[in-house]
Amino acid sequence: IEAGDAEALREQAAPLHESEMGDVIEALSADDRVRLVTLLGDAFDYLALTEVDDSVRIDLMESLPNSEIARGVADLDSDDAVYILEDLEAEDRDEILAQMPVFERISLKRSLDFPEDSAGRRMQTEFIAIPPFWTVGQTIDYLRTNDDLPDEFYQIYVVDPGFKLLGVLPLDRILRVQRATRIEDLMNTQLREIEATLDQEEAARIFERYDEIEVAVVDEGRRLVGILTVDDIVDVINEEANEDIHRLGGVGDEDISRSVPGVVRSRATWLAVNLGTATLASLVIGLFDDTISQMVALAVLMPIVASMGGVAGTQTMTVTVRAISQRELDRNNAWRLIRRELLVGLTNGAIFAVLLGLITGFRFADAGLGIVIAAAMVVNMVVAGGSGILIPLTLEKLKLDPAVASSTFVMTLTDVVGFFAFLTLAGWWFGLF
Amino acid sequence: IEAGDAEALREQAAPLHESEMGDVIEALSADDRVRLVTLLGDAFDYLALTEVDDSVRIDLMESLPNSEIARGVADLDSDDAVYILEDLEAEDRDEILAQMPVFERISLKRSLDFPEDSAGRRMQTEFIAIPPFWTVGQTIDYLRTNDDLPDEFYQIYVVDPGFKLLGVLPLDRILRVQRATRIEDLMNTQLREIEATLDQEEAARIFERYDEIEVAVVDEGRRLVGILTVDDIVDVINEEANEDIHRLGGVGDEDISRSVPGVVRSRATWLAVNLGTATLASLVIGLFDDTISQMVALAVLMPIVASMGGVAGTQTMTVTVRAISQRELDRNNAWRLIRRELLVGLTNGAIFAVLLGLITGFRFADAGLGIVIAAAMVVNMVVAGGSGILIPLTLEKLKLDPAVASSTFVMTLTDVVGFFAFLTLAGWWFGLF
Repeated sequence: IEAGDAEALREQAAPLHESEMGDVIEALSADDRVRLVTLLGDAFDYLALTEVDDSVRIDLMESLPNSEIARGVADLDSDDAVYILEDLEAEDRDEILAQMPVFERISLKRSLDFPEDSAGRRMQTEFIAIPPFWTVGQTIDYLRTNDDLPDEFYQIYVVDPGFKLLGVLPLDRILRVQRATRIEDLMNTQLREIEATLDQEEAARIFERYDEIEVAVVDEGRRLVGILTVDDIVDVINEEANEDIHRLGGVGDEDISRSVPGVVRSRATWLAVNLGTATLASLVIGLFDDTISQMVALAVLMPIVASMGGVAGTQTMTVTVRAISQRELDRNNAWRLIRRELLVGLTNGAIFAVLLGLITGFRFADAGLGIVIAAAMVVNMVVAGGSGILIPLTLEKLKLDPAVASSTFVMTLTDVVGFFAFLTLAGWWFGLF
Repeated sequence: IEAGDAEALREQAAPLHESEMGDVIEALSADDRVRLVTLLGDAFDYLALTEVDDSVRIDLMESLPNSEIARGVADLDSDDAVYILEDLEAEDRDEILAQMPVFERISLKRSLDFPEDSAGRRMQTEFIAIPPFWTVGQTIDYLRTNDDLPDEFYQIYVVDPGFKLLGVLPLDRILRVQRATRIEDLMNTQLREIEATLDQEEAARIFERYDEIEVAVVDEGRRLVGILTVDDIVDVINEEANEDIHRLGGVGDEDISRSVPGVVRSRATWLAVNLGTATLASLVIGLFDDTISQMVALAVLMPIVASMGGVAGTQTMTVTVRAISQRELDRNNAWRLIRRELLVGLTNGAIFAVLLGLITGFRFADAGLGIVIAAAMVVNMVVAGGSGILIPLTLEKLKLDPAVASSTFVMTLTDVVGFFAFLTLAGWWFGLF
């Protein structure tokens, strides 16, 4: 098909949903992608570009002529157009915008002026607004005769002459009542508005919390400037979860279409940090090389204490980081949870200390060694529980993302404390200093 | 307020959204929760129970009389009612169902008969179905005169006499056209149906992919039995992300309202597994105790190699597990990604091997030790990359959840290989065996 038969291609592409077209694009090589879009011409729906990985989209856009992109993007709803344009370089973006019809250009520029990841960037500027003094009949007649309506809509917005939001009207309310009913008697006045500058994650929280499918976006003067729809919010929730997971795993913004050099770079940061912290832990062990040379069993056993602390710390940290990002953990319950995690650390510490103590005591036929490793374990598990919750909370307080750095700090601390506690206790118990 | 003043309470509770009421419930002590619900009586909206943590809901429900619950739940949409009832013990559930009106009882029973976490459990059985030969005018008149409509609806379903789905009609389509338009000419026949037995995660994928807000649920005979709405899907997506994150972090189904004994139990499993694997790693070190006693520097350095492998393995595993659960990784691209991860491991392995080799060489003034640790590092990083992707893929193939166990396997492998490679190479290089 990539032999240049535009006709056949168009026929095949026509019934595809944009997300299926997106899959087709991802499956092609970089050159074929450009050829496909060029061959399809007018028949290519740029909406498909909202369904591919960022790296694929950016590569493809850079290979297409800006005039072509301008034409394709002008057909889209504003939220999709912004999504496609926002990752481009400012220069290309301005050139594309300059080639678009004036109305679309102004509305896109306004959206793009809002900060990255804000509700203003994600909003759709096509919506229906009516005055409160209309009747249901007038509204239906208006919808029937107006052919410049958004592609899909679920609510109608009721505004005053200054475009301040007075109420919202889900479509089902209009259909339940007689034509004579006045809009202002029917509209929902329990308003939920989202400021255009609000972070998209906060906006997503509002959708989740109140089970909304569309929410009005207002500017600083409380004037209606757009709407956020739940399908965009679903993407935000997914992106956010991906981010949390990737950051906890020590990888940057990475998607599976990235090439080797990109991935190497995205992972190198945390490997470098870990090289530093692992070296630190090794220096701690170095302090005890005399002790170890007198009793090699210590070298054999010390990773167990460190590793158990690492797991316990990671468990607490995972729950904490997710609770913070879901806004479930705040000042009100922080103390209760800190106490809880310390207690959990102490309890599990005690349980596994006894187990490990017994195993070790028998393995090396040395009760003293069992007691020492058990004691070190309890210490490290309590430290793990405490640091697992306190480190993310501290990062959050410093306005840093707890998902990014918590893991390294917690692992380093549990390693260092694990080695130090075990080797110190052993040195003291066996008089090896 | 908890002094028993029901009047005042009702007044305060009336304007609250169900999710705000949920927050109030979570903030109270267990006894106060029961007292609050009892005092509010009829004025308590059971929808609030869908907004609290599972453990809070179950505790509360066990303390309330079943007749009270039956009355409260009967008022809810079927999806919310099922959500509340599904976690109860079978005995309580049956007793509650027996006390409900017959129509609600049957529809709830049918939903509850579908497997846990299936679309059938999450679906709402209240929807509007009309025949294809109606006109828009007839439909609007039907909606205006029928007062048994669902609380909210966004689409109307067009069915044949056997309740097979023929088309869907988003409400905005009805409002755009004249009364005389026939439904069958207007309806959307590009149908997306979800089988009631489909897993809710798969259903969520369909919503994400096609940006739907409502999708029809059909039984095995393709008869329309209910609808799935996007607000429930948002919850599914969130739950699923939480699950992935928690499992990767080695914790079970845990929420922040759990008490200490519950948390201790939820974490103990993986701590026990880790005790086993850490002991295994320690046995590997034990094989080399002779070597270590001749050269204590090895004990000081060996955790670095293991820890770098652990980080690299976790990075690859995180990306892989998330890609699997997002259905982005399948047979088509698995080989490409495996090759990519091995190459990334080799590249980062080489970079950090040189770094660590230099640091070590200078620190111990021993070039040989630097070369040995560098070589061990490359080996371990390649193993980390390979196991980070192969272990989750294998677990997936065995129909196990890769998020649950991958982490332990990867960490164990990188620890064992890290220690083994470094100590073997060192023993051989320095002739210590």
